[in-house]
Amino acid sequence: MAEIGIGLVGGGYMGKAHAVALSAVGAVFDTALRPRLACISASSPDSAERYRAAYGFERAAADWRALVDDPGVEAVVIAAPQGTHRAIAEAALALGKPVFCEKPLGASLEDARAMTEAAEAAGVASMIGFNYIRTPASRYARDLVASGRIGDVTWFRGEHTEDFYADPDAPATWRSEGEANGTLGDLAPHMINGARALIGPIEQVMADIPTVHPMRGGVPAGNDDQAQAMVRFENGATGHLFFSRIATGRKMGYAYEIHGTRGSIRFDQEDQNALWLYLAEGPEAERGFRKILTGPEHPDYLPFCQGPGHGTGYQDQIIIEARDFLRAIETGEPVWPTFREGLEVSRTIAAIRASAEAGGWRRVDAF
Amino acid sequence: MAEIGIGLVGGGYMGKAHAVALSAVGAVFDTALRPRLACISASSPDSAERYRAAYGFERAAADWRALVDDPGVEAVVIAAPQGTHRAIAEAALALGKPVFCEKPLGASLEDARAMTEAAEAAGVASMIGFNYIRTPASRYARDLVASGRIGDVTWFRGEHTEDFYADPDAPATWRSEGEANGTLGDLAPHMINGARALIGPIEQVMADIPTVHPMRGGVPAGNDDQAQAMVRFENGATGHLFFSRIATGRKMGYAYEIHGTRGSIRFDQEDQNALWLYLAEGPEAERGFRKILTGPEHPDYLPFCQGPGHGTGYQDQIIIEARDFLRAIETGEPVWPTFREGLEVSRTIAAIRASAEAGGWRRVDAF
Amino acid sequence: MAEIGIGLVGGGYMGKAHAVALSAVGAVFDTALRPRLACISASSPDSAERYRAAYGFERAAADWRALVDDPGVEAVVIAAPQGTHRAIAEAALALGKPVFCEKPLGASLEDARAMTEAAEAAGVASMIGFNYIRTPASRYARDLVASGRIGDVTWFRGEHTEDFYADPDAPATWRSEGEANGTLGDLAPHMINGARALIGPIEQVMADIPTVHPMRGGVPAGNDDQAQAMVRFENGATGHLFFSRIATGRKMGYAYEIHGTRGSIRFDQEDQNALWLYLAEGPEAERGFRKILTGPEHPDYLPFCQGPGHGTGYQDQIIIEARDFLRAIETGEPVWPTFREGLEVSRTIAAIRASAEAGGWRRVDAF
Amino acid sequence: MAEIGIGLVGGGYMGKAHAVALSAVGAVFDTALRPRLACISASSPDSAERYRAAYGFERAAADWRALVDDPGVEAVVIAAPQGTHRAIAEAALALGKPVFCEKPLGASLEDARAMTEAAEAAGVASMIGFNYIRTPASRYARDLVASGRIGDVTWFRGEHTEDFYADPDAPATWRSEGEANGTLGDLAPHMINGARALIGPIEQVMADIPTVHPMRGGVPAGNDDQAQAMVRFENGATGHLFFSRIATGRKMGYAYEIHGTRGSIRFDQEDQNALWLYLAEGPEAERGFRKILTGPEHPDYLPFCQGPGHGTGYQDQIIIEARDFLRAIETGEPVWPTFREGLEVSRTIAAIRASAEAGGWRRVDAF
Repeated sequence: MAEIGIGLVGGGYMGKAHAVALSAVGAVFDTALRPRLACISASSPDSAERYRAAYGFERAAADWRALVDDPGVEAVVIAAPQGTHRAIAEAALALGKPVFCEKPLGASLEDARAMTEAAEAAGVASMIGFNYIRTPASRYARDLVASGRIGDVTWFRGEHTEDFYADPDAPATWRSEGEANGTLGDLAPHMINGARALIGPIEQVMADIPTVHPMRGGVPAGNDDQAQAMVRFENGATGHLFFSRIATGRKMGYAYEIHGTRGSIRFDQEDQNALWLYLAEGPEAERGFRKILTGPEHPDYLPFCQGPGHGTGYQDQIIIEARDFLRAIETGEPVWPTFREGLEVSRTIAAIRASAEAGGWRRVDAF
Repeated sequence: MAEIGIGLVGGGYMGKAHAVALSAVGAVFDTALRPRLACISASSPDSAERYRAAYGFERAAADWRALVDDPGVEAVVIAAPQGTHRAIAEAALALGKPVFCEKPLGASLEDARAMTEAAEAAGVASMIGFNYIRTPASRYARDLVASGRIGDVTWFRGEHTEDFYADPDAPATWRSEGEANGTLGDLAPHMINGARALIGPIEQVMADIPTVHPMRGGVPAGNDDQAQAMVRFENGATGHLFFSRIATGRKMGYAYEIHGTRGSIRFDQEDQNALWLYLAEGPEAERGFRKILTGPEHPDYLPFCQGPGHGTGYQDQIIIEARDFLRAIETGEPVWPTFREGLEVSRTIAAIRASAEAGGWRRVDAF
Repeated sequence: MAEIGIGLVGGGYMGKAHAVALSAVGAVFDTALRPRLACISASSPDSAERYRAAYGFERAAADWRALVDDPGVEAVVIAAPQGTHRAIAEAALALGKPVFCEKPLGASLEDARAMTEAAEAAGVASMIGFNYIRTPASRYARDLVASGRIGDVTWFRGEHTEDFYADPDAPATWRSEGEANGTLGDLAPHMINGARALIGPIEQVMADIPTVHPMRGGVPAGNDDQAQAMVRFENGATGHLFFSRIATGRKMGYAYEIHGTRGSIRFDQEDQNALWLYLAEGPEAERGFRKILTGPEHPDYLPFCQGPGHGTGYQDQIIIEARDFLRAIETGEPVWPTFREGLEVSRTIAAIRASAEAGGWRRVDAF
Repeated sequence: MAEIGIGLVGGGYMGKAHAVALSAVGAVFDTALRPRLACISASSPDSAERYRAAYGFERAAADWRALVDDPGVEAVVIAAPQGTHRAIAEAALALGKPVFCEKPLGASLEDARAMTEAAEAAGVASMIGFNYIRTPASRYARDLVASGRIGDVTWFRGEHTEDFYADPDAPATWRSEGEANGTLGDLAPHMINGARALIGPIEQVMADIPTVHPMRGGVPAGNDDQAQAMVRFENGATGHLFFSRIATGRKMGYAYEIHGTRGSIRFDQEDQNALWLYLAEGPEAERGFRKILTGPEHPDYLPFCQGPGHGTGYQDQIIIEARDFLRAIETGEPVWPTFREGLEVSRTIAAIRASAEAGGWRRVDAF
């Protein structure tokens, strides 16, 4: 059984999620390639050492450069602030080391483009951490749409809504500073990726991006609280995207609905083990949205669960990401979503910003 | 106990709903003013006579003009095609007879303006049939928002979605002919009224109005299947409206959600006896959207129901409309929604159309 | 169009519901036989006169005897306390007048048997007011079971739960006095009728009937707060019934689930416009409980509703009862549920009481 | 950081779940005591070797006896057929090795009693794998009840329902052979444990245990398909338990509702990240069941999840079991649920069987 030494940059909550995934993935999927927790780095040597001990890595590196250069590190997982993504990825790719990078790909469209070009030039595996789309329910939704089970798509509505900033009197944090940390920069990538994965490329957008609370915890807020955009997909469907961090009552509002000519789909990550499906077939009297509980019949339902309804959780998708990253390294074939998907999401965000400023429609391919 | 002779124009399903309401309203509310089912007219004398017998009216009129002129008709209820609304209303108002008119107010903005001016000049009661907003749940939602229970509103999402035209191969009907019968003309008024009632006047709109299925039942479709609009309310809140008659699986998708700084509300007419309320108060661990079943504690829960949860239905709101129309006549005071509300809805629709054509924001007060 | 003079005994909330239904039923169903609101009586002449004016009856009677004897009263509707049911019904039936009686049939099994025998001896229409089973959803559930759509029934769980007595410190009322007004006597009949209508006759029962709060509002409670029973149906299915008036949070918990070998059904009156259906057919991955919104495709969806999802309410079922009572009178054919169904429910209740006392199974046919 | 060598008996789906948990628990909880995957055994040496490689154990043992005797095995996890539980546990306990045993404790009440006595005599950690009660939602439900937040409990309804045997024509398996593998033996222990954990000890039971399908896949079925029991708790509350493996449409129907004098709770494992809570406080108009999404405010919400609503899954509870077993070993203090809880569940099952045979109430403490 082959092993590969993994270097993890960052030990915060996403770093931890990846550390746990790397510990478990072998037992879960009996992977041919097994990850060795070789090295971890963090914002300081002290915290790197603390994470090393907690998560079971062999070594702690002084900083990400040392980690990337560590000969025992054969692949790099980036779970550090988005401002550092580009430099880390470029350094690792320059050494021919595969890279898994948390979303968003970089802090800007320029970063994303550079990282994608670097990965494609290096010819090694690159992946980006769009994990919500990996639930069995969303995987199955993609299959249903792609197979034509609900006919031609006529409408898509997607949202990513949370309420951690609903109270304008709560203290400001790094999240209220800088365009990249606003609602559009921070929350939107997951659902833009979701819209693309479910329906296809977005052709045009027209958006409104208000900063609802100009003051946050007594100081001027530096970025947006909400964003909405009307969209037109390349396949002719239209849709709407909404992002909010002030959506009182919403905790993990990664949700969508899809209308097709022969069926419809609804999903809400707050009940991530269910997919709602309506099929316009059979007697009219028997029709209704059915609540499908994900189970062994659906894609990537974790194999250790005996039957349907046992329930998948957040961590499970991170384990599946680890499996896919290992597979991409092992086979040398790209596994979706590569950096290019991250770039496409960034281009869409750029078009959304531009349309809001101009007050009219903008084409995504202009960015 | 005073009586008033009512003339009903139209005996189709909305005419019938009003006939039933006029039969029942006295017993339900013990109204001071009791309706007498004096006269009914329809598209032909034969059908008028058939309706007369079925619904228990005293007389059938040859046409709406004869009905309006009938001295025993002291107030007029219009449940006829929208193209006839203006002429009937103007004739009745010219004789000083109060008028209740089904939505939309007329077939065009011009009609709506003329009817409103006629009603205000006549100084008699005028009402428009926005009935969905009358459920106990939506009445209560209005109270919650108006009282500040959910804080300042930061977002409104409203939709009116059905699926009666989801199959493009189904035969075309009058609904696919003419701008006024399209999705925006026919389905949108209820939810635009709802948005105004719940949140307040709309200042600006920006819309997209596709005709998704250019062919309908084998012939070219004459109007739109879907419409969406981003909106900005006068009070600073933003929102989104969506209308569709091809929303596969949706039967009565008059639905909205409202985010406020201290709470949120959700409603769906498909479960019209419930209102979902989230309050950002009390221990975090105990918070969640609560499903409130409407009951005697809520506005206009019909008085013959013993307790909560017994359930209100479509017809009940029409009975409440009848009560309010009688009250407006009796007191001489305007009862919401008057024709002016219908006019405001029509202006909003005009702005939505203009914004879709221009591809940019439009102010409602410019129409 | 033929008319029939109706006498209504009782003007409280159920009396009012019947008065409204009698006012509306002609317009709703265009019935061949039209009810004339001839006479009403109540607990005193004064209240009878007040109800007469409010509901639009022609005459008020001094008491129920005068009403029954009134020659203009051709059929009698009983919405008076259960202790009076037997005497009124026997008097009316002795004069050959059809009788509609609110549930329960009488205050005791003996009453129920006497009333049923009187009705069958008189050979005129008799009906009992089990109205919850009349919603389109429950009517459709009956059809699904009867047609074998869900295969052989293997399990039935029914409950009727409310919370009006959940607080033991709230004042005692007539409901805490006397066996007939307890949970089993007052709440259970609807769901026992439901179980019989959906599944079939009950063969054996085994029950537990606690008085959870021995003191109610500071005085000793005179009857039960809860009752549960395990049941065995004649067709071999087993099940469970639960009744409670202290079910905190439940407002109209008339709810059931039915398991069959090829499908399952769930219903809750708190969302009375929906029926949940699971069918064990088609690909496993697509299976789930579907939420069917009642509409024109379902039985007795009121005809003035344009489409599905418009919503039926409590009053609508009372209107349908009025239609069926008129039909029974007109045709001379029994219309379900006749007094005999009321008697079967009373026998089941008697067996439930006996099994709780004995601590073992009891056969219903022994009562 | 101290390590402990773990021996795992069994590598099927529950064995795998424990292997994954042992791999991940250190990184997840930064446990002081870290598990070393020392040895695994299975039904044959070959399958043991296959599991060893897949899950990353150091050694494969020829059989469970060799595993128990392995000096590097310092604690034993039993995930083997229930008929083997007693012998394995007794052997390990005789060597002073702590034991974690999957439910049910043994194949009979006698087994359970012997195992509990052995564990208590050995004075080492013993735990039983009731994992469903460990979700954040059910942990929180226990806290709510115990703290009196919903007042005095007046009713408990629990079920464990699945549908894997709904089709009587499907082939028979080991599950249709032998009392211990029937619905009561196999499915019931989880919810009996749940009832005890949530409400308290059960005093009396009265049950019905039908074998609904006497033939299974063409051969006589050897055990029960369904079981129901009315229960009386020691604290005075009453309740009902239902178990079924033919509950068409149910996939993981571990569900309960609890009525209290000041509130109510509902839970269904099919939506395991939510707990429904009704509180009889505040204005009547604002009351309703609230859907609480579990998050960091609730017990044992996994620490790597950033916020509420991210979702816990089946595997997460097994990881928490591993943490608790390590803690019990490390501290020497019993951690719930010990073998004694398993014994109490077995006694309740014995009383349920006896009551069904006798047709009357039975006390649990008689077993």
